[in-house]
Amino acid sequence: MTDIDAIMRMAPVIPVLVIEDLADALPVAQALVAGGLHVLEVTLRTPCALDAIRAMKQVEGAVVGAGTVLNPRDLDAALEAGSEFIVSPGLTEPLGKAAVASGVPFLPGTANAGDIMRGLDMGLTRFKFFPAMAAGGPPALKALASVFGQARFCPTGGITEASAPDWLAMDAVLCVGGGWMAPAGSEPAEISAKASAAAKLT
Amino acid sequence: MTDIDAIMRMAPVIPVLVIEDLADALPVAQALVAGGLHVLEVTLRTPCALDAIRAMKQVEGAVVGAGTVLNPRDLDAALEAGSEFIVSPGLTEPLGKAAVASGVPFLPGTANAGDIMRGLDMGLTRFKFFPAMAAGGPPALKALASVFGQARFCPTGGITEASAPDWLAMDAVLCVGGGWMAPAGSEPAEISAKASAAAKLT
Amino acid sequence: MTDIDAIMRMAPVIPVLVIEDLADALPVAQALVAGGLHVLEVTLRTPCALDAIRAMKQVEGAVVGAGTVLNPRDLDAALEAGSEFIVSPGLTEPLGKAAVASGVPFLPGTANAGDIMRGLDMGLTRFKFFPAMAAGGPPALKALASVFGQARFCPTGGITEASAPDWLAMDAVLCVGGGWMAPAGSEPAEISAKASAAAKLT
Repeated sequence: MTDIDAIMRMAPVIPVLVIEDLADALPVAQALVAGGLHVLEVTLRTPCALDAIRAMKQVEGAVVGAGTVLNPRDLDAALEAGSEFIVSPGLTEPLGKAAVASGVPFLPGTANAGDIMRGLDMGLTRFKFFPAMAAGGPPALKALASVFGQARFCPTGGITEASAPDWLAMDAVLCVGGGWMAPAGSEPAEISAKASAAAKLT
Repeated sequence: MTDIDAIMRMAPVIPVLVIEDLADALPVAQALVAGGLHVLEVTLRTPCALDAIRAMKQVEGAVVGAGTVLNPRDLDAALEAGSEFIVSPGLTEPLGKAAVASGVPFLPGTANAGDIMRGLDMGLTRFKFFPAMAAGGPPALKALASVFGQARFCPTGGITEASAPDWLAMDAVLCVGGGWMAPAGSEPAEISAKASAAAKLT
Repeated sequence: MTDIDAIMRMAPVIPVLVIEDLADALPVAQALVAGGLHVLEVTLRTPCALDAIRAMKQVEGAVVGAGTVLNPRDLDAALEAGSEFIVSPGLTEPLGKAAVASGVPFLPGTANAGDIMRGLDMGLTRFKFFPAMAAGGPPALKALASVFGQARFCPTGGITEASAPDWLAMDAVLCVGGGWMAPAGSEPAEISAKASAAAKLT
């Protein structure tokens, strides 16, 4: 199993996907991977999300994880569906302990110093920063990163193709999360083109 | 006992009251209810707050709760005074467990994803978002609400009659909290007029 | 042992120091104390931080504490080095309990209402507000302070000589933390001059 640090370094952007129609899962994943984004986060916000994870795993080269994992029950369902990594919006003790015990690569959301310290106490050093823009933007993460030298981040929430470089320029940022590559109703060619541009961001 | 969802839907605005002089309690409550705001939150920030709750409960049609409840001790005092709902600025495990165990309608403050996840773990789905403007304003709550589909909010803190509609326009917002209807030293007629305007906000 | 409230009232600014070279510790501390800033926070972000604390304690009149204390292990090391107070970026239960049990003056970081309530539950009423600017600036702390009447704060993070007065004007603020008095590579005379100006801020 690849660790979360390696997953975060596979591409500058992790697509955060809300799949409403299971039929979209396979073509969306193929288009993203074709564009160079191999790490795919499927949020557990729709009824078909777990099946979408199963479908996307069939795509050669895709590394498919589950997002919006809120508790140990969600974690179990996500692992059962074959999720290769787990993302949560925030960090609670029950979820953190269960995720660490499972050994799955885990990227918990944090928004402040207390969140990060609770994560470090669990042995975690890789974090989502969420919601990235609303929680203070780059200055907020810079302030936090200056204190937690060992931590690395994937800011997510309100980040666009235009603002991603501001985040990626920070040493503490390994990648960003975003949904702009595959908005609902996009054609595969469009998705591949946007993924390809995203894969080249620095 | 009405549940917290029903209380949040009674009016678009919950007046957040700081009663310095017990003599004001009854006329302020009467004026607010006359203006159409039946749900009244009395903050436990003044020595006479618990007596103010007792006094306001005499007003026909008023649903009187306690705000600024910080711990189980405050909760017990608030319930003893007859509070019909409980509001807190943040959510701790001791307060959350005690409030849930008591069965009282409970609206705990949250400011980030970890707070909301800890609340969901306790079976709570209705939250205050505090301090609403300073914690990132509407974009912050939009980002959080997009992830927690089952949650509904009462943003409070820095909201004015002018900014309330921006919040109320969000599906995830059932009502807002604010103090602008009854600033210290207001005449009953003024309070009723402002309450009446607030009750019509959408 | 002086309590944390008294330490916070010794000067309007606590220098937050990142000491890369142990040879700087003594002259930096001497220059700050000569300028009128007696309370010195040495962050545990560099390999020589604990030795820097030991060195600075030799300066007559200096009150030397450790910052960036993340867990009970850091706390023990900081106390072993003779730290007279402890500052952390956030508050966790293990660190909070260990710090309270040790009796050392403790200034834990907070950024939201939940953090402050967890601190109050531990008997703490003096808090760092961090990162002060990125967590919402003065309006955010004003909103929080209005709810927690018993709490007093040391905002830290992004504060400059120019913005410090905005914070110090708040009743809930006893002092601010900042690094502008002693940026890396400063001459002692410069540090003393800046410290002297900082000591006069109101």
